Amino acid sequence: MIRKINRDPVEPAAGNGILSRRIFLEGTLAVGATGTGLSCASAEPLAVQPWMKTPGSGFVGYGQPSPFESKVVKAFLPSPATPGVGASRTPLHLLEGMITPSGLHFERSHSGIPDIDPDQHRLVIHGLVKRPLVFTVEALSRYPMQSRIAFIECGGNSQVLNAPQAQPLNATAIHGLVGCSEWTGVPVSTLLDEAGVEPAARWVIAEGADAAAMSRSIPIAKAMDDALVCFYQNGERVRPSNGYPVRLLLPGFEGNMNVKWLRRLKLTAGPAMSKDETSKYTILLKDEKAWQFVFPMEVKSFIARPSPGLALRGPGFYEISGLAWSGNGSIRQVEVSADGGQSWAPAALQGPILPKAPVRFRAAWQWNGGPAVLQSRATDDTGMVQPTRAQFAAERGLRGVYHYNAIASWRIDEMGEVNNVYA
Amino acid sequence: MIRKINRDPVEPAAGNGILSRRIFLEGTLAVGATGTGLSCASAEPLAVQPWMKTPGSGFVGYGQPSPFESKVVKAFLPSPATPGVGASRTPLHLLEGMITPSGLHFERSHSGIPDIDPDQHRLVIHGLVKRPLVFTVEALSRYPMQSRIAFIECGGNSQVLNAPQAQPLNATAIHGLVGCSEWTGVPVSTLLDEAGVEPAARWVIAEGADAAAMSRSIPIAKAMDDALVCFYQNGERVRPSNGYPVRLLLPGFEGNMNVKWLRRLKLTAGPAMSKDETSKYTILLKDEKAWQFVFPMEVKSFIARPSPGLALRGPGFYEISGLAWSGNGSIRQVEVSADGGQSWAPAALQGPILPKAPVRFRAAWQWNGGPAVLQSRATDDTGMVQPTRAQFAAERGLRGVYHYNAIASWRIDEMGEVNNVYA
Repeated sequence: MIRKINRDPVEPAAGNGILSRRIFLEGTLAVGATGTGLSCASAEPLAVQPWMKTPGSGFVGYGQPSPFESKVVKAFLPSPATPGVGASRTPLHLLEGMITPSGLHFERSHSGIPDIDPDQHRLVIHGLVKRPLVFTVEALSRYPMQSRIAFIECGGNSQVLNAPQAQPLNATAIHGLVGCSEWTGVPVSTLLDEAGVEPAARWVIAEGADAAAMSRSIPIAKAMDDALVCFYQNGERVRPSNGYPVRLLLPGFEGNMNVKWLRRLKLTAGPAMSKDETSKYTILLKDEKAWQFVFPMEVKSFIARPSPGLALRGPGFYEISGLAWSGNGSIRQVEVSADGGQSWAPAALQGPILPKAPVRFRAAWQWNGGPAVLQSRATDDTGMVQPTRAQFAAERGLRGVYHYNAIASWRIDEMGEVNNVYA
Repeated sequence: MIRKINRDPVEPAAGNGILSRRIFLEGTLAVGATGTGLSCASAEPLAVQPWMKTPGSGFVGYGQPSPFESKVVKAFLPSPATPGVGASRTPLHLLEGMITPSGLHFERSHSGIPDIDPDQHRLVIHGLVKRPLVFTVEALSRYPMQSRIAFIECGGNSQVLNAPQAQPLNATAIHGLVGCSEWTGVPVSTLLDEAGVEPAARWVIAEGADAAAMSRSIPIAKAMDDALVCFYQNGERVRPSNGYPVRLLLPGFEGNMNVKWLRRLKLTAGPAMSKDETSKYTILLKDEKAWQFVFPMEVKSFIARPSPGLALRGPGFYEISGLAWSGNGSIRQVEVSADGGQSWAPAALQGPILPKAPVRFRAAWQWNGGPAVLQSRATDDTGMVQPTRAQFAAERGLRGVYHYNAIASWRIDEMGEVNNVYA
């Protein structure tokens, strides 16, 4: 049962030290590759730490992270005058895997987090329907449910990369308006069938029960396809900051269309032209026209580790770890580069690879101690490839602040410091 | 784009009201089937609740559930003399989907939860190795990682169903020693390769850094197969109650072998015969012999909803929702019965279906208001089928307290009350 292990150096797969993904797929890391284990003539006697000498603490009803992890929190800028307006960001540079813990899932709120009594909350379905319906949360939860693992990304995520000069920001500050949960709820199609859709209905206006009454117009085709009215996030009830007691999930569509604190779905012939689809969340182009009603978040990826604030500690082996996702489908491939895009090698993709869900990718990198520029480039199963920043600028310009999905770059200097750059 | 909907009654699929799973697979719920939406001549004007009239609350670093969900907590019996010895249970009857939120993941601890400083913690690999190694947590995290969604189930889960009389307990009290997370860490095989396994090594002794130094012996084949040394649980660092900063994951193997607070892996020629594999965690049979070193948790399922404490509110449509899992592979099928096992119909299985991960199953049930006995029966991809309680008793007897996996039964009475029964 002892496997034959590879004592040869792992073969290079792209320039400046990118190694073959066989390390992940076959576990063929060369012995001593990381050089981080301290070899001991005798590992005994083992140290007996203080926490082994007395019984530990007892049970609690709802557990929390270790106090030693108190720095792993959402990032936000305090705004004393309007404390609930704006966003808090998922600390992506400190997380791993695909799921975002609910306590760290980003939020974008337009008038704070309402404190909703679920027994008093109602969801109304009205407009161009045969039977207007009013649901309690308890009544909604009687319908057949579905679960799915899906990302939600704010339409404005990564917008700071539009700035003329690369800003000294970390992965969380740049890309942190994305998260992933296992969502469970009732298909919107079930509820619309129950109400009876009139033939003239082409749009569904979704409105939240926050003080902003945040509203978006959704094509009825999406509502009847894979939209869910969700009660559960990662197994438990949806968190207040993510829409308790009921939120809309539109897999792959820009974040604020996934209306939180959902209070009504109104079926209409045309879109509402609400504040959040006219003054905001339209995609300004370089010719001063704008795209409106462009909903899916395009294929994208970024490297979470190494990244700014996580300096390298000397030459040697490093895992490059990041996330890739597409609102149009599944991730087919992620490539990584350590030489600013001159050469690329495929990363290992962590299964399960699910549509409209993030994929953790990993690559092995032997840092020689010299300058390097790390990049990742994702391709989805529709064939869409992340553009370079220059390609993105040529197509759309850099005046818009939504749907930025170009390849991002981290420069490593000879001290191992990591910085956001344009390359 | 408006789908053609099925206005015919959904066809029955098994006795006493079990309906076709087409309701989940094709969304063909008959209009008005649940009868829970309140139909209104006019749904307007919509009520404006107090929380829409003032701005909501601001951002916090680490979010929490709604105060309205304060009853959704782990279940445990207070034990003032030994507060950290025993178990707390996942509140399965109040959860949905596949993922267990980390704050609600069950725990079984033998001497409380140690408060470990990750900078002081060490993992030692020694015994029959060429190079004994001592790792800091930071050094371990330099190695290539993998993520996987996997259940962990205590070997003693559901043992109360061995009692001669069915006890008045709910799903959480009976089945709550199981949970599921996305775990991320380094393959044990990578670390053992680094240490160099001596040919005589056949077992790996894993020991925790709690005051009990909880220890188990693991076949080296498992260690070299899919075992992980985990740092991350559902994206963030492993919770203290689940092994912070480092725990072992042995996908599918009984819970306490997934040693928490992992401090050493010692390679040996034979098993350690530790307290927890001799006085505990052996499977007592009816002939007073016992199975030792039977590791995988066998195929199992239970119905989370309806279940005791979640009474039905009158005849009509109900979703039956539960979990199924197998430590030997993937779930192939789950069947449900509403007549105590006289007739069965296949449930809908929620993807992704992953090996050694739980699967949420759902079935549609039209309750006629009469007595019913709900059961679920899972089959895994090795062909193993959950036995009836009588079959289980005939094979193993009912004196053991580990690895109980027989079909469980909820009786519904004419008032809609749900009770644990043997049927």
